[in-house]
Amino acid sequence: MISPHGHVQPHLLAEDAVFKDPAGLLISPDHYVTRLLHATGVGLHDLGVGHQSLSEDEARRAWRLLCEHWQVFAGTPVRLWFEAELVEIFGVTLRPSAQTADTIFDQVVGCLGQNAYKPRALYDRFKIEVLTTTFDPCDDLSVYDVLANDPTWAGRAIPAFRPDRYLELARPDWPKLVEQLGEAAGADTGDYQGFLAALEQRRRYFVDHGATSTDHSHLDARTDPLERPEAARIYRAALASEASSDEAVAFRRHMMLEMARMSCEDGLVMTLHPGIRRNHHQPTEATLGPDTGCDIPVRAEFTEALRPLLERYGTAAGFHLVVFTVDETVWSRELAPMAGFYPSVYVGAPWWFLDAPDAIRRFRSAVTETAGFFKTSGFVDDTRAFCSIPVRHDMSRRLDAGMLAGLVAEHRLSEEEAAEVAGALVTEQPKRVFKL
Amino acid sequence: MISPHGHVQPHLLAEDAVFKDPAGLLISPDHYVTRLLHATGVGLHDLGVGHQSLSEDEARRAWRLLCEHWQVFAGTPVRLWFEAELVEIFGVTLRPSAQTADTIFDQVVGCLGQNAYKPRALYDRFKIEVLTTTFDPCDDLSVYDVLANDPTWAGRAIPAFRPDRYLELARPDWPKLVEQLGEAAGADTGDYQGFLAALEQRRRYFVDHGATSTDHSHLDARTDPLERPEAARIYRAALASEASSDEAVAFRRHMMLEMARMSCEDGLVMTLHPGIRRNHHQPTEATLGPDTGCDIPVRAEFTEALRPLLERYGTAAGFHLVVFTVDETVWSRELAPMAGFYPSVYVGAPWWFLDAPDAIRRFRSAVTETAGFFKTSGFVDDTRAFCSIPVRHDMSRRLDAGMLAGLVAEHRLSEEEAAEVAGALVTEQPKRVFKL
Amino acid sequence: MISPHGHVQPHLLAEDAVFKDPAGLLISPDHYVTRLLHATGVGLHDLGVGHQSLSEDEARRAWRLLCEHWQVFAGTPVRLWFEAELVEIFGVTLRPSAQTADTIFDQVVGCLGQNAYKPRALYDRFKIEVLTTTFDPCDDLSVYDVLANDPTWAGRAIPAFRPDRYLELARPDWPKLVEQLGEAAGADTGDYQGFLAALEQRRRYFVDHGATSTDHSHLDARTDPLERPEAARIYRAALASEASSDEAVAFRRHMMLEMARMSCEDGLVMTLHPGIRRNHHQPTEATLGPDTGCDIPVRAEFTEALRPLLERYGTAAGFHLVVFTVDETVWSRELAPMAGFYPSVYVGAPWWFLDAPDAIRRFRSAVTETAGFFKTSGFVDDTRAFCSIPVRHDMSRRLDAGMLAGLVAEHRLSEEEAAEVAGALVTEQPKRVFKL
Repeated sequence: MISPHGHVQPHLLAEDAVFKDPAGLLISPDHYVTRLLHATGVGLHDLGVGHQSLSEDEARRAWRLLCEHWQVFAGTPVRLWFEAELVEIFGVTLRPSAQTADTIFDQVVGCLGQNAYKPRALYDRFKIEVLTTTFDPCDDLSVYDVLANDPTWAGRAIPAFRPDRYLELARPDWPKLVEQLGEAAGADTGDYQGFLAALEQRRRYFVDHGATSTDHSHLDARTDPLERPEAARIYRAALASEASSDEAVAFRRHMMLEMARMSCEDGLVMTLHPGIRRNHHQPTEATLGPDTGCDIPVRAEFTEALRPLLERYGTAAGFHLVVFTVDETVWSRELAPMAGFYPSVYVGAPWWFLDAPDAIRRFRSAVTETAGFFKTSGFVDDTRAFCSIPVRHDMSRRLDAGMLAGLVAEHRLSEEEAAEVAGALVTEQPKRVFKL
Repeated sequence: MISPHGHVQPHLLAEDAVFKDPAGLLISPDHYVTRLLHATGVGLHDLGVGHQSLSEDEARRAWRLLCEHWQVFAGTPVRLWFEAELVEIFGVTLRPSAQTADTIFDQVVGCLGQNAYKPRALYDRFKIEVLTTTFDPCDDLSVYDVLANDPTWAGRAIPAFRPDRYLELARPDWPKLVEQLGEAAGADTGDYQGFLAALEQRRRYFVDHGATSTDHSHLDARTDPLERPEAARIYRAALASEASSDEAVAFRRHMMLEMARMSCEDGLVMTLHPGIRRNHHQPTEATLGPDTGCDIPVRAEFTEALRPLLERYGTAAGFHLVVFTVDETVWSRELAPMAGFYPSVYVGAPWWFLDAPDAIRRFRSAVTETAGFFKTSGFVDDTRAFCSIPVRHDMSRRLDAGMLAGLVAEHRLSEEEAAEVAGALVTEQPKRVFKL
Repeated sequence: MISPHGHVQPHLLAEDAVFKDPAGLLISPDHYVTRLLHATGVGLHDLGVGHQSLSEDEARRAWRLLCEHWQVFAGTPVRLWFEAELVEIFGVTLRPSAQTADTIFDQVVGCLGQNAYKPRALYDRFKIEVLTTTFDPCDDLSVYDVLANDPTWAGRAIPAFRPDRYLELARPDWPKLVEQLGEAAGADTGDYQGFLAALEQRRRYFVDHGATSTDHSHLDARTDPLERPEAARIYRAALASEASSDEAVAFRRHMMLEMARMSCEDGLVMTLHPGIRRNHHQPTEATLGPDTGCDIPVRAEFTEALRPLLERYGTAAGFHLVVFTVDETVWSRELAPMAGFYPSVYVGAPWWFLDAPDAIRRFRSAVTETAGFFKTSGFVDDTRAFCSIPVRHDMSRRLDAGMLAGLVAEHRLSEEEAAEVAGALVTEQPKRVFKL
């Protein structure tokens, strides 16, 4: 299992402590689960969202809320994943309901106390080969040193570089953020040149800790260049909290080009995850913080947006640009045509709201005829829920296999070739695309 | 059969008169039928569009035009529906063609003279439980009193509140419309406050006549707030025909918020049907009036558009917002994610150009994985053609059942649960969503 | 086989010379083939793109590059088409690979030397009834006279009128182009009136050489009228290279209306192919010229864009407007509803990035329920690769037959009617739509 993009914390593996309770493991950190319960009238707080940890009573109550509302997940991938996790990892064969909630809770609790359910044991059981986790440029990555220097740990965990916050000059906390960036990098971020140097330095730090990719998620994907003096001027204005919001956006779009330039230089694969209106419901963010399920996609545009970047770096040797979307209309219209021409461009696997069986089928249907299989990224689980990693990959493999079987059945591919493609999509393709 | 949104007139049921002729019953009022014949070169006028009633010769001629062009409906739902109506209601088993047109016409005429084909008899035969009809705020709803007080009538017919015209300040007839609104409400609509009061009063009048929902159809779905003095200023300017078109649009977008506020207060379910360029071909409107088949969808946007409304009312207790679209790209990108987070939001059933077998399958495919089944509205026939109600619901049920069977076949749902969902979608779900 | 739109040169048929080599016949002219190889890291130049002709070594090397990278085409229509061409035309049953490249090359070379593989022999073998080729208004069409006057040639080859370049006033070479247009037409293009006259004259010239259609491909589809004096003013300004880019765009949009007017007068079917960002990667264009695979689609809009045109000419007797798209989101939202109302509008067959099995299925799924089968154009191969014509049509017929079989299986159409529709889509429908 190769996981080139996700959010499971490596500290889990470094500490290798027992998981505390079923709700904290399987419910609270997974906005796929909490989102739809909230939509049904269950309070996010009651599911443990925003808590540091749950008491046993709170955990049991959150678990019961899930089980009582089991029907709302019918037809969703959460249902598939949760069921597979219960059956395959915890041996639970009861269907969740108000009646069975406590029994299942107790059975999972019973498992969690065992050594076989500690993070490293699960890592091995899941047969994970690489586990990637997104980190902030200022983050201390010494956890990776701990893992690398631990003779009892044979896995591979690596960070990905995610500088979003430092590129959004309109954030009220931005001056403070770049100050911290300067400190982390040992560079003076008092001007634009120092800012670039600090980013380059932190990218090297990530590379030194195993990173092979960067991760960028802004509202749009535009990559419009600024003249260097203009970029420097806006940077200075933003430090003085005097940049307009238009200038802030212009600077961020320009910085995408700089990120691509740095990727050409240091070899980090550049991945884009744009097109999300974060914290659509601000009262929820104000109460519970970000990543609570109220991020909503917006329409995406890539053809014009990426043109300046691809004009410069689209055919650069070794440059890889993996583009993810939650707007599926761009698959056949924009991403497959671009990946079908530019050597650097790969279409990212179906992401977030689209990483479910029907959406994955639509993805292969929309992309393959123009870009084939080998200009796609291979599966990316992108999860915060450690135990969902195996079933997510399993689902993806079954769907790709099913799609390939369809091509064979229609005499569009030989069975032998289909088997080769199916295998390549699981291992060689993500390794090649993400330089693992 | 529950019909929470449609356009069949309740006067049919109050008067319970025999239907005059097959064309006036099955062709002229149904723009699904007339539209595609027009696209094939048949004049709308020749199909009875724009007539008050048809002579027997005209009706027979319109019927023959339909039958002669039967092939153009191949692959469309009109074909399905019409065939089912002929077979199941009128016992006609001949295929429509130039040769069979008169025979079929005569057979239907023969039926229409019988008591079993009068509106109330068909209502009973169709097993309709609730029939909802959209009305203008100024409309007299005493027809519902007549039905309610008729001891021989055991059905349920209710109105829905559709105030579109009163929110479009750029209409040349708007000053006159709000004057009429004031008269209907017994309120002084000479200022903004009186306008709001009049709308609130008419909503109460609708509630008193059984209404459970409102219905809003504008070009876009935006909900941008205005400060109250600014709204009042634009209102005054519009009364003097001095509001700019930008101001008129701003006022309408603001009024969507007011409609949501009123829904939170009086409990009416708010339904949106945006994204249609009405009367795309103005010469047709000038000759034959609105609703003649030349309304064409435009691209829709909901994520940013509904944000102000959902910020205020998205988690309000008891508030229901049902969002319909004729732009299917928003299903997976915007509507399912919003319905999958906000307790108030439901994704409306496939509507208008999308209420056909393949489109309904695409709807369930696009929506279910993110929002499940229980954040969708249940089927809405939205028809002007009384006799098409049963087959439209029948089609929808078969498609949902087929989709659920697919989930069972792929082991994504148990057969028992699928049966529960199938049943719930027909009755409990629309009752719950539309508060019936 | 009826080919109402394409890019195979009629000079092939006039000269009827042997094809030189497999790469020049099957690889270099076909950007479907070269595009995806380029995306995999193969240089376009090495595939013969931009060469006038290839030496035997170059041709053999290009062929080997294709065969070595055979896997990248898995799941794409190129794979289907190429395989069918090799098997059915050249009797090659080996799978392309590094090992088999030379053998296959030699086998195809062996065929090409035979009379049975000369263009006219293939034309007969392919059973082509009409072959249409797009030409520039200034082009000399005497090749069609040669063919028409050749007693040994019984086929039908016709031109289509494609005036794009003359309507883009912002092109640096535009003043020179309209001067050439004036010379070709024997008209003075020194003013707007002369420009219109020149276009009308060249359209007549095309009609005289068999043309039945025009072909328009601009970035968007808008059709906004200008007052005649304003159009004349912009025209004059552009001649002096003083028109702004906004004015240039406004003029082009206005000219779409003029093109429609001329179509109403001279009967040429108007076809639109908008929504492509040409030469997305300018370094490739600078090196190798246009049509090298780096044209990328953009989002399309037709409802508002075509409204002025359809307001004027949408119901004009005899006017045909065929609208193609590479943005599939408009099929159900805009094109099917317009074709389902306006007698003049037909939905073009899936085009370019969408002319592959899954996309064709999505097309029929999205369009049929609103517009039926008879408001679609029939298949258009749009190819530069002569030998791919049969398999492209074959693929389309199989897919339509499969879709019709699905309707029969679901009792949405009788088997007899499905067979009628299948036949009509191949012959009567394109003949009727393109006035052949």
